[in-house]
Amino acid sequence: MPTTPAYAAPSAKAPLAPFSVERREPGPHDVLIDIHYCGVCHSDIHQARDEWGGAIFPMVPGHEIAGRVAQVGGSVTRYKVGDAVGVGCFVDSCRECEWCRKGEEQYCDRGMNGTYNSRERTGQPTYGGYSTRITVDENYVLRIPESLPLDKAAPLLCAGITTYSPLKSYGLKAGDTLAVVGLGGLGHMGVKLGKALGAEVTVLSTSPSKEKDAKALGATHFAATSNKDTFKTLAKKFDFILDTVSAEHDYNAYLNLLKTNGTMILVGAPETPSKLGAFSLIGRRLKLGGSMIGGIRETQEMLDFCAKHNVTSDIEVIPIQKINEAYERMLKGDVRYRFVIDINSLKK
Amino acid sequence: MPTTPAYAAPSAKAPLAPFSVERREPGPHDVLIDIHYCGVCHSDIHQARDEWGGAIFPMVPGHEIAGRVAQVGGSVTRYKVGDAVGVGCFVDSCRECEWCRKGEEQYCDRGMNGTYNSRERTGQPTYGGYSTRITVDENYVLRIPESLPLDKAAPLLCAGITTYSPLKSYGLKAGDTLAVVGLGGLGHMGVKLGKALGAEVTVLSTSPSKEKDAKALGATHFAATSNKDTFKTLAKKFDFILDTVSAEHDYNAYLNLLKTNGTMILVGAPETPSKLGAFSLIGRRLKLGGSMIGGIRETQEMLDFCAKHNVTSDIEVIPIQKINEAYERMLKGDVRYRFVIDINSLKK
Repeated sequence: MPTTPAYAAPSAKAPLAPFSVERREPGPHDVLIDIHYCGVCHSDIHQARDEWGGAIFPMVPGHEIAGRVAQVGGSVTRYKVGDAVGVGCFVDSCRECEWCRKGEEQYCDRGMNGTYNSRERTGQPTYGGYSTRITVDENYVLRIPESLPLDKAAPLLCAGITTYSPLKSYGLKAGDTLAVVGLGGLGHMGVKLGKALGAEVTVLSTSPSKEKDAKALGATHFAATSNKDTFKTLAKKFDFILDTVSAEHDYNAYLNLLKTNGTMILVGAPETPSKLGAFSLIGRRLKLGGSMIGGIRETQEMLDFCAKHNVTSDIEVIPIQKINEAYERMLKGDVRYRFVIDINSLKK
Repeated sequence: MPTTPAYAAPSAKAPLAPFSVERREPGPHDVLIDIHYCGVCHSDIHQARDEWGGAIFPMVPGHEIAGRVAQVGGSVTRYKVGDAVGVGCFVDSCRECEWCRKGEEQYCDRGMNGTYNSRERTGQPTYGGYSTRITVDENYVLRIPESLPLDKAAPLLCAGITTYSPLKSYGLKAGDTLAVVGLGGLGHMGVKLGKALGAEVTVLSTSPSKEKDAKALGATHFAATSNKDTFKTLAKKFDFILDTVSAEHDYNAYLNLLKTNGTMILVGAPETPSKLGAFSLIGRRLKLGGSMIGGIRETQEMLDFCAKHNVTSDIEVIPIQKINEAYERMLKGDVRYRFVIDINSLKK
C-alpha cells in the first residue's frame, strides 16, 4: 500500500510537521477509510507534548475522524465503499474481558488500543487522524448518519461521546436541571446534548463574555463563576453537574450547587488532586463520579441521537498547515468551539 | 406529667451527670415510650463535647432508643400499649418538602428535628434517650419486631440504618463484592447487613487483631490496611466499598480497590478534607458518594429485614452510671462493638 501523507510531532518539544505513515492493507474484517476531517482535541496537545508521559514518537495525533469508506475487506458486512464513517478514541480492544463483552470497550481490562500514541494488538504503533486515510477493523468503525455534515460531526467522536455517555449512564432524565461547568470543546457539546436530552441547562463559566454563546447553544441560564454570589444564588439548584474543567477548582463549592441526592460528573481531569470534604457528600447523599468517552455501541447511539436531534459541533475549519497555530490558540481558549482539520489540505 | 430521670452533659467540658427533663403529655398523635435501652453512638460524644458547634446545653444524648409503649394519644392508630418500639436520630421533620413526602425525612429541606441537641417544631429543645421515657409522634416511631431483643436492637436505629440505607440506595446486589473499611460500631453492622444482603464481604481494618471478629461477624475475607501490600493484592476487587472511618485517610488508595464502575460510599466523615484525584474517577467510571442515616420507611424496612435475617448488634450493656467511662473507652476504640445503656439503672 502506498504511503499515507500525515502530520506528526517528531518529539515532545518540536512542532508538528509533514510526515508519512504506512497503513496496512485491509484484512478480511478491515475498512480502509478516506479521511475527510479530523477534530482537534485538547488531549492531542497533551500527548504530542508528552505531558501525560509514555508518548510514542513520531506521533500522528487525531481521534475525531470522519470520512468515507474507500475499500473493505472480504468479510466486512457492515460497511460498503462510499459510506460515511467515523473513528473515535480507540481502534481495538481485547474483545474478551467483561467490559469488551458489555460493549464498553473504553474500560477494557487490558487497556483499549488507542487510535494514536498507542499500539495495535500486533505491537505496531497506532497513528491517528491527522492523515489522509486509516485502516480500522469494522467493529471499531462508526456509521455517521448521512444527514450530519462530516466536518461538524467529527468532534462528536470524542467531545460528543465524552459528554453524552455520562449524561446517560448517570441517569439524566428529561426535566432535570443540569449545570455544565466550562464552555469549551467538551462543555459546548454538553450543553447541546443535555438540552437535546430534555434537561434545563445552565452554563457556569469563568468568562461572563460567554453568556450569549451559552444561550445560543441551548442553555436556559448562564452564571459567571467569577461572581461569588453565583455560589449562593444557585445553591441546591441542580440534579446534575457536568464538570468539563481541567484546571484545578474547588469541588466542594460546586457540590453545594447540587440538590440533595444530586450527582456531579467529572470529565475534565485537573492534574493536581482537589480537596474534598466528606460532610457535603454525606449530609445530602451527593455523588461525585467520573466518566471516560464511551463504547462503540453507545457512540453509535450518540451519533444516531445527534442525527435525530440535529446536534453537531460548532467548529472552525483549518488546513493542516495551521495546526501548530491552532494548538497555541486552544491553549489560550481562543476557539469556539472546536478546530477541525480539513484533510483535503494534506492531499494537495 | 412527672419529671423524667435522665443523664445530661451540663456543658461541653463537664462529664455527664444526673438530670431530669419534662416530657410532654402525649397529644392525640403521640406515643409515650418507656425506654428500656439506649445505644451509645460516637456522635453522642461529638455533640456532648460541642465538637460540631451549636450545642444546646444541658444536653441529654441518645438516639438509639428501644423500649415499649406506655401510653398512646387518642388518635394513634399504629401502636398500642406494650408494643416494642424504637426511636432513631430524629423525632420530626417539616412533613411537606420533597424529601419528607418521599419518606426520606433525614434530608428534610428545612432540617430534620433531631432526637436530641435540636428543637421540636415548637422550638422546645429535644432531649434524647439517656432518660427513662420519651414522647414522640407516632409517625416518627419504629416498630421493633418481637423476635429482636431490645438491647441488641437499639443500635440498629442509628448504626444499623446508617449502613443499611446506602447499601440499598447505591444498589448492592447479592453476589457483589463489598469491602467494609473500619470495624467499629458502624463497620460491624455494615459487615452483618452486607452479608445478609448477599454480598461477599471483606473487612479492611488498621488492626490485624480484628480478623477473628471480622470473620465471626460474617466477613469472608480480612485485610490489614497497615500492610501496604493490601492495596496491591486487592486492586480492582470490589463492586462497593462502605467507608465507615472518620479519621483522615487517603480516598485515592481505596478507590483503586474498586472494580471499574464501582462505588465507594462514605458514612464516616473525617473533619479535614481529603485529597481526591479526578483521574481515578474518570478512567474507570468510579463513583464516590455519601449517605446519612435513613428515613422512617426505610428504617422500618431495615428492622423487619434484621428480624428476618436475625441481625442485631454486638453490644456491651452498661449502667448509665458508667457512661463517662464508656465515652473514654470508645475514644480508644475499646468497645466490641456498641455500648448500650440499660435504662433500668436510671429508674432505681
